[in-house]
Amino acid sequence: MTRTLIRGGLVVTAADEIHADVLIEGSRVAALAASGSHAAAGWTADRVVDATGRYVLPGGVDAHTHMEMPFGGTRSSDTFETGTRAAAWGGTTTIVDFAIQSVGGSLRAGLDAWHAKADGRCAIDYGFHMILSDVTEASLAEMDALVAEGVTSFKLFMAYPGVFYSDDGKILRAMQRAAGNGGLIMMHAENGIAIDVLVEQALAAGRTDPRYHGEVRKALLEAEATHRAVQLARVAGAPLYVVHVSAAEAVAELSAARQLGLDVYGETCPQYLFLSADDLARPGFEGAKYVCSTPLRPAEHQEALWRALRTDDLSVVSTDHCPFCFTGQKDLGRGDFSKIPNGLPGVEHRMDLLHQAVVEGRISRRRWIELACAAPARMFGLHPRKGTIAPGSDADIVLYDPAATQTLSAAGHHMNVDHSVYEGRRITGRVETVLSRGVPVIEERRWTGRAGHGRYLPRAVGTYPRQP
Amino acid sequence: MTRTLIRGGLVVTAADEIHADVLIEGSRVAALAASGSHAAAGWTADRVVDATGRYVLPGGVDAHTHMEMPFGGTRSSDTFETGTRAAAWGGTTTIVDFAIQSVGGSLRAGLDAWHAKADGRCAIDYGFHMILSDVTEASLAEMDALVAEGVTSFKLFMAYPGVFYSDDGKILRAMQRAAGNGGLIMMHAENGIAIDVLVEQALAAGRTDPRYHGEVRKALLEAEATHRAVQLARVAGAPLYVVHVSAAEAVAELSAARQLGLDVYGETCPQYLFLSADDLARPGFEGAKYVCSTPLRPAEHQEALWRALRTDDLSVVSTDHCPFCFTGQKDLGRGDFSKIPNGLPGVEHRMDLLHQAVVEGRISRRRWIELACAAPARMFGLHPRKGTIAPGSDADIVLYDPAATQTLSAAGHHMNVDHSVYEGRRITGRVETVLSRGVPVIEERRWTGRAGHGRYLPRAVGTYPRQP
Amino acid sequence: MTRTLIRGGLVVTAADEIHADVLIEGSRVAALAASGSHAAAGWTADRVVDATGRYVLPGGVDAHTHMEMPFGGTRSSDTFETGTRAAAWGGTTTIVDFAIQSVGGSLRAGLDAWHAKADGRCAIDYGFHMILSDVTEASLAEMDALVAEGVTSFKLFMAYPGVFYSDDGKILRAMQRAAGNGGLIMMHAENGIAIDVLVEQALAAGRTDPRYHGEVRKALLEAEATHRAVQLARVAGAPLYVVHVSAAEAVAELSAARQLGLDVYGETCPQYLFLSADDLARPGFEGAKYVCSTPLRPAEHQEALWRALRTDDLSVVSTDHCPFCFTGQKDLGRGDFSKIPNGLPGVEHRMDLLHQAVVEGRISRRRWIELACAAPARMFGLHPRKGTIAPGSDADIVLYDPAATQTLSAAGHHMNVDHSVYEGRRITGRVETVLSRGVPVIEERRWTGRAGHGRYLPRAVGTYPRQP
Amino acid sequence: MTRTLIRGGLVVTAADEIHADVLIEGSRVAALAASGSHAAAGWTADRVVDATGRYVLPGGVDAHTHMEMPFGGTRSSDTFETGTRAAAWGGTTTIVDFAIQSVGGSLRAGLDAWHAKADGRCAIDYGFHMILSDVTEASLAEMDALVAEGVTSFKLFMAYPGVFYSDDGKILRAMQRAAGNGGLIMMHAENGIAIDVLVEQALAAGRTDPRYHGEVRKALLEAEATHRAVQLARVAGAPLYVVHVSAAEAVAELSAARQLGLDVYGETCPQYLFLSADDLARPGFEGAKYVCSTPLRPAEHQEALWRALRTDDLSVVSTDHCPFCFTGQKDLGRGDFSKIPNGLPGVEHRMDLLHQAVVEGRISRRRWIELACAAPARMFGLHPRKGTIAPGSDADIVLYDPAATQTLSAAGHHMNVDHSVYEGRRITGRVETVLSRGVPVIEERRWTGRAGHGRYLPRAVGTYPRQP
Repeated sequence: MTRTLIRGGLVVTAADEIHADVLIEGSRVAALAASGSHAAAGWTADRVVDATGRYVLPGGVDAHTHMEMPFGGTRSSDTFETGTRAAAWGGTTTIVDFAIQSVGGSLRAGLDAWHAKADGRCAIDYGFHMILSDVTEASLAEMDALVAEGVTSFKLFMAYPGVFYSDDGKILRAMQRAAGNGGLIMMHAENGIAIDVLVEQALAAGRTDPRYHGEVRKALLEAEATHRAVQLARVAGAPLYVVHVSAAEAVAELSAARQLGLDVYGETCPQYLFLSADDLARPGFEGAKYVCSTPLRPAEHQEALWRALRTDDLSVVSTDHCPFCFTGQKDLGRGDFSKIPNGLPGVEHRMDLLHQAVVEGRISRRRWIELACAAPARMFGLHPRKGTIAPGSDADIVLYDPAATQTLSAAGHHMNVDHSVYEGRRITGRVETVLSRGVPVIEERRWTGRAGHGRYLPRAVGTYPRQP
Repeated sequence: MTRTLIRGGLVVTAADEIHADVLIEGSRVAALAASGSHAAAGWTADRVVDATGRYVLPGGVDAHTHMEMPFGGTRSSDTFETGTRAAAWGGTTTIVDFAIQSVGGSLRAGLDAWHAKADGRCAIDYGFHMILSDVTEASLAEMDALVAEGVTSFKLFMAYPGVFYSDDGKILRAMQRAAGNGGLIMMHAENGIAIDVLVEQALAAGRTDPRYHGEVRKALLEAEATHRAVQLARVAGAPLYVVHVSAAEAVAELSAARQLGLDVYGETCPQYLFLSADDLARPGFEGAKYVCSTPLRPAEHQEALWRALRTDDLSVVSTDHCPFCFTGQKDLGRGDFSKIPNGLPGVEHRMDLLHQAVVEGRISRRRWIELACAAPARMFGLHPRKGTIAPGSDADIVLYDPAATQTLSAAGHHMNVDHSVYEGRRITGRVETVLSRGVPVIEERRWTGRAGHGRYLPRAVGTYPRQP
Repeated sequence: MTRTLIRGGLVVTAADEIHADVLIEGSRVAALAASGSHAAAGWTADRVVDATGRYVLPGGVDAHTHMEMPFGGTRSSDTFETGTRAAAWGGTTTIVDFAIQSVGGSLRAGLDAWHAKADGRCAIDYGFHMILSDVTEASLAEMDALVAEGVTSFKLFMAYPGVFYSDDGKILRAMQRAAGNGGLIMMHAENGIAIDVLVEQALAAGRTDPRYHGEVRKALLEAEATHRAVQLARVAGAPLYVVHVSAAEAVAELSAARQLGLDVYGETCPQYLFLSADDLARPGFEGAKYVCSTPLRPAEHQEALWRALRTDDLSVVSTDHCPFCFTGQKDLGRGDFSKIPNGLPGVEHRMDLLHQAVVEGRISRRRWIELACAAPARMFGLHPRKGTIAPGSDADIVLYDPAATQTLSAAGHHMNVDHSVYEGRRITGRVETVLSRGVPVIEERRWTGRAGHGRYLPRAVGTYPRQP
Repeated sequence: MTRTLIRGGLVVTAADEIHADVLIEGSRVAALAASGSHAAAGWTADRVVDATGRYVLPGGVDAHTHMEMPFGGTRSSDTFETGTRAAAWGGTTTIVDFAIQSVGGSLRAGLDAWHAKADGRCAIDYGFHMILSDVTEASLAEMDALVAEGVTSFKLFMAYPGVFYSDDGKILRAMQRAAGNGGLIMMHAENGIAIDVLVEQALAAGRTDPRYHGEVRKALLEAEATHRAVQLARVAGAPLYVVHVSAAEAVAELSAARQLGLDVYGETCPQYLFLSADDLARPGFEGAKYVCSTPLRPAEHQEALWRALRTDDLSVVSTDHCPFCFTGQKDLGRGDFSKIPNGLPGVEHRMDLLHQAVVEGRISRRRWIELACAAPARMFGLHPRKGTIAPGSDADIVLYDPAATQTLSAAGHHMNVDHSVYEGRRITGRVETVLSRGVPVIEERRWTGRAGHGRYLPRAVGTYPRQP
């Protein structure tokens, strides 16, 4: 069993910032000792990593990715191989991707298909949520089996009628089932039925540019669906996790629900924090790069999101990574914004962008790690194995140089997509070294990982911060 | 340097629950290692404590005690010696007591007086808040000096006109000063001016029994003062910590403020969670034992407090320990409730009562430790030295037997007071062994501590969870 | 032209209470003069009515009735003849009933059918709202025509999937159309999709008694639909009127919307103010009499409704009169609550029950008249012709004896239904004389009206109190 | 007895807009008859006024004026003679001015002093509120007597320590007394204790210009005091009327209280609707003209006030007329904004400015009359004698030309003050003729009134819209 010793760094977790040496035995963290203690001084190791001047962080947990996802006649451009490699470059050592039930198909078939895509190809560990596209007695029964084997979260859509959409009755049934088996319902909360009316009206009126994607998917309709999902969850007695919250009005609905003490949680994504409707309105067809759902909002919504990240009305930052190339994919929607594949690349930049928020004084270092590592690990049943650095946890560890600077760009990124939505943005802070279960994946910014190192993670049911 | 090893327990902190061995070098935690790891197996120690089947907890931090406090012509019945000993018996290893500025006197003189009372007498470590009774240019200037030397929090009263009361102008000035020097304003939020009118009217109408103490100190007047304190803090740009919140309506004010993202925090106490106005209304003069301010509320307020403890609208549980003997002290108020000394004994039972809430499913184990240890340590500038078990932190550690049972009673408690407000209450869970800075104070329920072991703790300014 | 003079009463309108004589010329109020003025003294008339000791009220306007309405294989038991006669006995001189578009049919066909039912049969004046069961391009276009000819309000259902239900896209389209043509959207706000799941589950579990009707139609699902309707109305830029609000949680949604200044209005009905879920749970099959939707709620909801009637968060009291006989109609649902026809008799008792609320100190006399006469007349484009007593208004006038007492009972009522939901209830106050357009319909409690006196009322668009 | 007939106008009241002729017998409205009715046609009169194309309005009721009020060593520049004349020119036929109790003096003495100032000098009718400057057992007892004789409202100040200020205990006592005797407590809600600290700090820092008057009197401190007044009123069980509300945050407090169903009412003034902090910041010393308390707020507050006027969260528009000449009075505060007499001229322009809001689509015509005439008359016990045009009411009637235009200017106004805060503002609409108790005061813009025509109005207790 290899012993690795990380010496002299500042270990930052959601709970603490301590000057400590970290001893790894094989794939796990064996111990932490105060820097300068006799205990630390006495340690020897096969490999010693000098972390002086570096943060020693738990590897990031990105609970919302879509690799190789079919959408609108194409599929997202990152494979599990390219996508997990890019994740690792960005300091993320776990992803939870979404397996998809086909309409008319079983959960099992969907899950098997996703296992087949991912198996043997991932650079880092991965788990699966399940998208319920077809809530039937049979698929409800399958939910129990999936929870038992480690797929403990299920996504439903109030948007995309005819594709992923479930009506309120199906949603209620799925929530009731989850209340019984411990699964967590994740909700895409937009009133897709109403939005489709506005889409049709916009197109009929010749409003076909990408920016109309943002205008028709109104903040009020995100807020409406959020409120509805909360009420249905109350009726069902189930917890609720709302994905990719972007509108201030939707945040207000979450806040109100949480003030009542309900088990309701919200996630946002870096694109909602750092980009805006102005990007969607970029001239030419450039705005297509910024088409995702929920859409980017006017910049004044960002303040509400940052505040909610501080007040915990939003508890997780994931990426909703779902890249499509500008050439050959995004341009399917020239002349009709509704045909632009929905999604942005982002899995590589989450840790850095949130560190930028630390630098700018928006969140604390500990809150950074909580939002990006610990909270998603807890919420999705991976804690304390993932999301923290503690005796017994997986040795998924990032050495982060808080003083280095970098410029985000398609030229340098590792995602398989022909553009960057953050092109030219300057960031302070950079991932330097990444261990996955004790194995170096990146060493001082050299790639040492390999496809197939990453293992599938069966997950426990989540532990929600408010529940006893 | 003595090496102590705590083997085989479940280490519970605000962040994690891990099976780990804890190695203490001298007064500090040197390292934690996963149970069964090679690192753990390799450790030797001068003293090995078997924690099998026990929780290994950070020692409790009680941020609100009043030892030997003068009030209404008498003084609270616990000295620093008896009070800190009782605290240790209850698993609390740090208290922050309130030094008092006399009207017309300096902060320094008040602080010196409290140092004189505590010096050489405490069984556990202690710090001081400062009560500002007389906000003047001189005392404002002294605040800066006190912050610099480790008294970083200042309590003001909106109640008790003529005694501790500060008007809104004085409060605003003190808050402005705190905004500049990093101090934290703690507020007793009750509209004492209005309450005194109701007191006078009640007495004039012959309503003199203890229960009228609760009736005149109306929930609406606690809520009013809470709202006012929040607004004044906003004007001053200062954070705010509201002590001993008891009314659902006051909680609602805190919730509303926090939803705005303000740095506003609330504390409650076990008496508000476990006792009620029914106790104040006990027959005879028995209710006098339950006279404290804010008062005990009708039992339906408790649910709002528990919910707020889960939602973090209340962040800390302290005791407001301020015991007066029934005979000779409480009976000063026979025939006139306004003359009953205000205060309850409680420093010994906080950890146990909150564990009871864990057993009853109201809060999680981690939240227990957060409320009772980590959050007060952070809030009052003692973290990570106190409030957690991490490499480098003080070895203030409690071995807790979660399965033992005990019955609370004046017959068995260690506080210097002739009654228990929890007389006869059955509790599951019990403190077994307590270390203070590595030194056993209680060993398997035998007292091994000594007066004078406890040291004064200069404190840093607090770190508020919402601040970057 | 007949001149009628009503002498010596207290004229009560929504605005004023004045001692005045009322002079009627033909069908209209010509003038009001202060009692005892020279002007009054000089008046002569063909008929003089002595109103000494009586209230002189505008005739009631019941904006929500269902005469001869097909429902669940039967039809409501009052015809336009029997129902309007009963209305007049209760002091109501105008009803607005709901014409129904059939699925696949035109609005025109539905309206014609209702005209055919009512024409020549009504004892008092009447208008029609239109129920949109099938929102299509064709029916949207018809809305404009109907508004132009005097059908200026349109009801949509979020409940009753497969019958009246419209999805959110249809609702949005209808609201957009109404925003353009001045029509008012009336909403049955219950999440019928979710409710139908609960109905199915209840029946499958053998919960078939009438009381389960109330349990499955959850207050949270009324509140949810209310919130959703508000958000859709905001997107459409249209005012909204929510019918038969029964749940405190739904009232809260209206309050929140109104606090934002939105043109959102709510109606409740006497059954929600005076009856409760306890009635639904009456033993045997008795509860079936009390089956209506939204359902009767637990009694604690009543206080929220009364408060909202005072704060104007509820602006109108209508009856939703929709009677079904216990024998032969309600009993269609023995063994399956979902087959019980939904609806209660009530058109005769609204004015009296609200007067009872005046007597009991819940609302003022003027608010009584506002809720029952003036506000519905304004909201539905009948003011100042109906709903007030002012020079120029129709002479629809009720002489009300505030001191008389009566006992409500099926034995004495005039509705064509075999039971009373208020059986045995004692009321202070009674209608004595009723004029419809100057013609006595009831004279000192003798029936003098006739089928066919009542005329169809084309209506203007409403005037909403908050709009300039 | 003179008979006057107003023919052919549109009678606008808070409740109705009707084409009617108004018959006056002596000082009272005898009757209204529909234009064109036989009743109207039959009327003859000593004097016939042609109102074709005009609005026939109830005379305005200005419930908040300060004539000849001592303040800061000077007194407001309008006497009861000049001020009531100006009021009449502006279509106001009733004022309620504030008599002032001196500290140490009796209510009686204060009231007598104000009677002496007003007696025989007023052009229109007037009543008095009483300012309580010194709440003692004696003055509380006097309140009962004043209510009995027609002074039914009492103003308290949370601002102006050392002058009018009452502490919360005094406020509570006065509210309790009012709860018993039916009086209405009017509150100047600003936290004057805190404001005085900010004033002192601003002056010490050399911030002496008029605009700092607005900066130190913070919106949060108005909101705070508003909330506090509401809570004290709840404790006392008394209704509350908050004067001159200017801050959006204060409106929010009223809204929240009213949503609870409390008897809480708010007043605002034209200056807060039409002027802003930009005026206070005018260059030179010009801003001094705009110094009043509560202060003018940044323009973005106006929208909240207009919305509240529509939602009835603000129920009355008064003027707080309290003029001081720029030369010789306002300039007392050169170099020290705290010495600028607080107050603005406005009694002449209220009806016109609110009509401008009608023209601009902010409020309806009926709401205009409700805010300016009916609501203050009801609130202060003058309805239906004042505030409406109904049989039996005083013949205080304004003929208003809605199409005329005018330019507000010190050159043309009738107030005794050397400047206009609305200088140069164009208004559509103008008062043409004014009757006070049937007597022409202004005839087609010629002055026909006289000092001494106006009579003192003993008032009943108010009728609050929400009370049964």
